Amino acid sequence: MRVLLAQINPTIGDLQGNIDLICKGIADGKEQGAELIVFPEMALVGYPPEDFLLLPQFILDAESALEKIIPLTLGVSVIIGTIRRHSAKGEKSICNSAAILSNGLLLGFQDKMLLPTYDVFDERRFFEPAHETRLWKLGANQVGVTICEDIWGYSDLSHHVSYSRNPVEDLAKLNPEFVVNLSASPFSISHFNSRLSVCAKAAQALKCPLLLCNQVGGNDSLIFDGRSLCVDKNGKLVACAKAFETDNLFVDLSVNHKPLLQKNDPIRDIYQALVLGIRDYFRKSGFTKACLGLSGGVDSALVAYLAVEALGKENVMGVLMPSRYSSADSLKDAQQLVNALQIDSQTISIEGPFQGFLDLMSPSFIDCLPDTTEENMQARLRGMILMSLSNKFGYIVLSTGNKSELAMGYATLYGDMCGGLAVISDLTKQQVYQLSNWINRDKEIIPWNTIKKAPSAELRPNQKDSDSLPDYSIVDNVLQLYIVEHQSPQHIAERFGYPLELVNELVKKIHRNEYKRRQGPLGLRVSDKAFSVGRRFPIVQKYI
Amino acid sequence: MRVLLAQINPTIGDLQGNIDLICKGIADGKEQGAELIVFPEMALVGYPPEDFLLLPQFILDAESALEKIIPLTLGVSVIIGTIRRHSAKGEKSICNSAAILSNGLLLGFQDKMLLPTYDVFDERRFFEPAHETRLWKLGANQVGVTICEDIWGYSDLSHHVSYSRNPVEDLAKLNPEFVVNLSASPFSISHFNSRLSVCAKAAQALKCPLLLCNQVGGNDSLIFDGRSLCVDKNGKLVACAKAFETDNLFVDLSVNHKPLLQKNDPIRDIYQALVLGIRDYFRKSGFTKACLGLSGGVDSALVAYLAVEALGKENVMGVLMPSRYSSADSLKDAQQLVNALQIDSQTISIEGPFQGFLDLMSPSFIDCLPDTTEENMQARLRGMILMSLSNKFGYIVLSTGNKSELAMGYATLYGDMCGGLAVISDLTKQQVYQLSNWINRDKEIIPWNTIKKAPSAELRPNQKDSDSLPDYSIVDNVLQLYIVEHQSPQHIAERFGYPLELVNELVKKIHRNEYKRRQGPLGLRVSDKAFSVGRRFPIVQKYI
Repeated sequence: MRVLLAQINPTIGDLQGNIDLICKGIADGKEQGAELIVFPEMALVGYPPEDFLLLPQFILDAESALEKIIPLTLGVSVIIGTIRRHSAKGEKSICNSAAILSNGLLLGFQDKMLLPTYDVFDERRFFEPAHETRLWKLGANQVGVTICEDIWGYSDLSHHVSYSRNPVEDLAKLNPEFVVNLSASPFSISHFNSRLSVCAKAAQALKCPLLLCNQVGGNDSLIFDGRSLCVDKNGKLVACAKAFETDNLFVDLSVNHKPLLQKNDPIRDIYQALVLGIRDYFRKSGFTKACLGLSGGVDSALVAYLAVEALGKENVMGVLMPSRYSSADSLKDAQQLVNALQIDSQTISIEGPFQGFLDLMSPSFIDCLPDTTEENMQARLRGMILMSLSNKFGYIVLSTGNKSELAMGYATLYGDMCGGLAVISDLTKQQVYQLSNWINRDKEIIPWNTIKKAPSAELRPNQKDSDSLPDYSIVDNVLQLYIVEHQSPQHIAERFGYPLELVNELVKKIHRNEYKRRQGPLGLRVSDKAFSVGRRFPIVQKYI
Repeated sequence: MRVLLAQINPTIGDLQGNIDLICKGIADGKEQGAELIVFPEMALVGYPPEDFLLLPQFILDAESALEKIIPLTLGVSVIIGTIRRHSAKGEKSICNSAAILSNGLLLGFQDKMLLPTYDVFDERRFFEPAHETRLWKLGANQVGVTICEDIWGYSDLSHHVSYSRNPVEDLAKLNPEFVVNLSASPFSISHFNSRLSVCAKAAQALKCPLLLCNQVGGNDSLIFDGRSLCVDKNGKLVACAKAFETDNLFVDLSVNHKPLLQKNDPIRDIYQALVLGIRDYFRKSGFTKACLGLSGGVDSALVAYLAVEALGKENVMGVLMPSRYSSADSLKDAQQLVNALQIDSQTISIEGPFQGFLDLMSPSFIDCLPDTTEENMQARLRGMILMSLSNKFGYIVLSTGNKSELAMGYATLYGDMCGGLAVISDLTKQQVYQLSNWINRDKEIIPWNTIKKAPSAELRPNQKDSDSLPDYSIVDNVLQLYIVEHQSPQHIAERFGYPLELVNELVKKIHRNEYKRRQGPLGLRVSDKAFSVGRRFPIVQKYI
């Protein structure tokens, strides 16, 4: 059987747009001799639609959308991820489902059995799980249909979850000729390897090939990496679609395929993920132009580069906003970046309004020493300038804080945290450097001076990040173990030989700054645990 | 049997503090002859602890905390809401549980069977449900133990949820002498009546008295109203603890109680809820002082009054920040409010920095007409002033936007949306007026002129809210039906006889401003569907 895995990029709630993508996929498949065409999980409605799933009209509209596609399946079989009402008794009234269409008929639905409810997933909020699975006769084949998590329950890679049902085992007993999996499996640095390993295990248990069709594209914080794939019955990867692009992957199951060697470059993955995340955020919300502040530091330089890659140099505006504390080097570095990227720029000094604001507040601040108040003022004036340009000309402001800074609260709320999209909020400071070095691998794009100088916010004379924070390598280790792996401070201190007081202080800082991050812009997720999505801690608490 | 419902106010993660409250409750109960003392759901760890539940150390610490309480139960029975690891096979490894202690022994645990996973509740993210229930022999009585939602599944009041298990029916078969329910049931305007009705139905089904012990206090956005209660076997309310205060409610089950008439004043409830919400936000996070901008309008006047009630007049600072567009009346009204509330105030004109900022941006804005950019500048300068006072003196800034404005995006991000707590973000404009009138029921506190004048942001000459928005009664009707009840625009238009285009335009505005609200401060929840918590919509979407 010849199968097309149609790796499309749906937009949440864009029913007509998604229908169009699906129609195009069906036409491509027919044209190139596919007998079965598979689309990703919830391809019809986009993923994740979140509380749109609670609007009865949304469900009706999704059902009507599916009706429109049925007649297009004459002469071919098609499996489409969607949602549907079910009529059985259950806690929730809708299912995350695969519609199975063949030759102009809707054969039925295979609902998702395992509903991830952890990290970024809230599927128990909306869906009733399937209670059974079966094989579907498509052409001459008996085919099993699963949706995303359905094959993950089989592995020990799920997040502290141990499902009582196992659709892979259920299907294995039915001896399918092959099994498809409709996915909306978001990217994280470690996730592709996990996904491959899950597919290999599932195929071995099923004793048949497994074909996974994954969504591609950015939807809010989540970035889907595509890389739809086929593993043979031994669990060997034999076909893989493009990463971070729409793609049509044709797989002929009657042919013996040679195992593929899939190379994985984590830094290149992050680069592609962020470019796609920016591009789709703008495209899907109807914006084209971005502006950002350029400080001469590495974070803003990296974001500017990524924005140019995503939006084109003609759509990125760099704003240099020096103050009395900006070094000559910083301005020079920022200007060098502007030249390298060939973007428009403006220079707007905050010196006048900063002095004006100091004067304004001086009657209220009698007998007060300067402190972070005056530092925050500068960051907020810069935020105001960027937001004024945004309001006047329709730029989306890109914020440039990294995960290490946001963890420590080393950022000004309503200042440098202003923006519509936080591009690198899920990159540690060390990853910022790794990615910047990678970008410069062939030639200097981000000025080497920007990369090599000691990080500074330049909000007071001779300020360095290291005045307020321990070395970023320490911060980043604590972040990984505390935020991502949920280890205790005790364990972290022992593991790295750090003083326990230091680790406790960093963990306290993380929680003390929850209130800032809660008001930050949406950030693009690339790690296994981002601040922006999938992490929910109370602001007021006394545990830490 | 004499029972104490110990209506305490736990803090999330404050294990020692919560132990102290529980010890005090046990001592009170013993002193006044209680044989059974019941505490609320998750009393030991605070509710909702959210992702703290994913930290293994947090679970261990909660288990140790329970150990400390066991010896204190000599001579009495005690039921405490907590969390525990379970050893059975299950998707999640911990349970939301009631620890049943008696005479210095831990008798066992009754886990929660129905796990709400809708609106503000995410319990399937963390917990494995109980698979069975039983009776517990406490003194001479056979007692059933339920946790919050366990009795709600029986009603038709749960949110589009129809559970397959029914702990009330299971318990009814066992003929309990009475049943207790440990709750952390958050306040909303309609919720107390629903809760009463649920308890009545459950008691009738159980054919025995039902005693519900509810948490009281504010935890982030959620406000718990207490009002622990007892209904007799006919479902009649016979005892009820105080609303919005800690309380000890003793119930002697051997006595025949007369039915209570419980009066419900929704506006007074909102008042008490918001005061408690402000007070606990400050107290539990260790802050004492608030500042806010006073525009002379009704929203800021109301928030100032509520802050004074919650924190004391000596802890509230009003800041008047006039501009060229402020009317003389507004300043006068704001000053009259300051006098009525006897709070400190400062007047800081934004005229200088506003002109400075206009001049600063003028080279970038050549050939541009004034628009909302210049309006937002003013709001952001005011935000900067408040944040500077906050940074310098440790005030928490209270933001003063109401739900109708936030729905419409009639607010400036990083401007009037600045703050640590959005006090009235879940009150419609009409509720703002109702509450203000109620506050003035005996004497003028909020200036009548403030209440009676047409609402205006005063960001351009002679501006009125009605220039940009339809009448607030229309906005508020659409909010109720679309946000709270999930009705379609078509249905809303028909129901009220509004033009469909108008309703569509308002619904579009709601979604178009999702990005602003995502960056707003935490708001206090009083409605059945708040923006700040329990509502999750994508920012980028094309459905609406």
